Amino acid sequence: MSEILVVGSLAYDDVQTPFERRRSVLGGAASYFAFAATLYARVRMVGVVGEDFERSDVERLGRRGIDVDGIERKPGRSFRWFGRYAYDMSTAETLNTDLGVFGDWHPDVPDRLRDVPHVFLANIDPEIQLDVLDQMRSPRLVAMDTMNYWLEFKKPQVAKVMSRSHVVCINEAEARQFAQTFSIIRAAKEILALGPAALVIKRGEHGAMLFTRDGGAFWSPAYPMEKVQDPTGAGDAFAGGLVGHLASAGRSDSDELRRAVVHGTVAASFAVETFSVDGIEAASTDALEGRYRVLRSLVAIGAESLAAAAPPPPGR
Amino acid sequence: MSEILVVGSLAYDDVQTPFERRRSVLGGAASYFAFAATLYARVRMVGVVGEDFERSDVERLGRRGIDVDGIERKPGRSFRWFGRYAYDMSTAETLNTDLGVFGDWHPDVPDRLRDVPHVFLANIDPEIQLDVLDQMRSPRLVAMDTMNYWLEFKKPQVAKVMSRSHVVCINEAEARQFAQTFSIIRAAKEILALGPAALVIKRGEHGAMLFTRDGGAFWSPAYPMEKVQDPTGAGDAFAGGLVGHLASAGRSDSDELRRAVVHGTVAASFAVETFSVDGIEAASTDALEGRYRVLRSLVAIGAESLAAAAPPPPGR
Repeated sequence: MSEILVVGSLAYDDVQTPFERRRSVLGGAASYFAFAATLYARVRMVGVVGEDFERSDVERLGRRGIDVDGIERKPGRSFRWFGRYAYDMSTAETLNTDLGVFGDWHPDVPDRLRDVPHVFLANIDPEIQLDVLDQMRSPRLVAMDTMNYWLEFKKPQVAKVMSRSHVVCINEAEARQFAQTFSIIRAAKEILALGPAALVIKRGEHGAMLFTRDGGAFWSPAYPMEKVQDPTGAGDAFAGGLVGHLASAGRSDSDELRRAVVHGTVAASFAVETFSVDGIEAASTDALEGRYRVLRSLVAIGAESLAAAAPPPPGR
Repeated sequence: MSEILVVGSLAYDDVQTPFERRRSVLGGAASYFAFAATLYARVRMVGVVGEDFERSDVERLGRRGIDVDGIERKPGRSFRWFGRYAYDMSTAETLNTDLGVFGDWHPDVPDRLRDVPHVFLANIDPEIQLDVLDQMRSPRLVAMDTMNYWLEFKKPQVAKVMSRSHVVCINEAEARQFAQTFSIIRAAKEILALGPAALVIKRGEHGAMLFTRDGGAFWSPAYPMEKVQDPTGAGDAFAGGLVGHLASAGRSDSDELRRAVVHGTVAASFAVETFSVDGIEAASTDALEGRYRVLRSLVAIGAESLAAAAPPPPGR
């Protein structure tokens, strides 16, 4: 089975929506990513937690087949995030971030993991992302995510990570912020000019777009949902479906990238159905394939419907 | 050639964007609709203008093959609208509306037009829409649009128009307003329960969605554009492409409705490229088919691409 190394945060989140509040639930970009990607490939995590991190939460990841041996435990508190959503249930307002043990963490990728062919640099300090990349021997595929905070305070470092990645995965507002333009098309051109082969722009309830350096473009709607309980982690689960599919396919040509975007969209839909990682943790390959078919049928016309309704390549 | 009757406003617009302002340019929902629909079918207009309406503007419609004999000229001023767009170039803020001769207009559909098989009730007072419907003898297809103002002040009348239409065509915010819910899916169910066979929800730069009473759903992205000069009339041109295609196809089954949504999306893209109706007036069937193919290629994967790249049914 193909392998993916993910580096990023494991965290406890406080999440407030207009309808409910949950405290100290398992979160972190790497957690959401791993629960999604593990449906497609063997996921190996590199990260750090504090003394307050429950052993049962590490075991929870392990039970899902995720390799947790690369998670360090350090003195201090785990990463904590407190965010709030307004009635549109889309962009989070960060009320507090406590980096905890991530504050002065320098990752040391275990030697046995330095040859893993697929690498996902989840949203985290871009200097940590670069540090990890420097330790990997010759990854076949590097994908990355980031957030507005790093674009504001460490943009040159983010640009460097982008230039060393094959797939850049960010949300719409971040693409606009990075390129200082409202036009998504111009933003895409600017980011692709840094070197990545593909850029995926996540648009929340409006789906996702793919731009490739050869000029190709692709769009997928979001999976239509009557109820969204907590949008936290949608982008990370998206990346899990995306990178998971690419690792499983063993190729990243234009068609596989397109399929990967649909898989990402599906993974995100499971993540937002519940608070914390519960939704994506509970997703099965069958459920995933069902939603993949629904998404493809949403854009199909006539004879094309038949092709769209064919099952996607198996997750494993 | 198939025929479409459109009733709605012919107007002079003052439009202000963050980048430019244009005064007294030809506008009105029926104008945008007609310039788009005339690419597909014979369009016959019913409307009213004031003494200030330039004869050359009526001739401009006529030159494009639009039947303008049903346009009445009455004492008083023509409909005028003054709107402003913020930097997101999406929803217009109406600064002033002067209904002028539309204020106390009671349409009298010429007898020779009462058998036209396809009817589009452009955004206008729902009582005028009902008045026109009462005069039509047995339309095969009725489509309608409306706006927030009528939903606020004449909701029961709007609901009545919806219940007598086959295709309801409104924007996302209006769907939410009508159904008093944030969920587009719930709003769609509520509107479809009134009786129409299909509901099209326009989402501006996020494309359009189709919901049919048999439970079907379809999404099309918007045509990707680097520059939008003036979003005014996008929804009306959208309806022109949509109804135009359905009239031209002579069917409104699920596949034709899906194609019609893509045609609507294409028509809207021409409308927003320039101020006033200039962009949609200048659109050719070739240009339209080109953008149709681009839009379909944006959602295609692998073998499906071939089907998507096949030309759409001819416009005429």
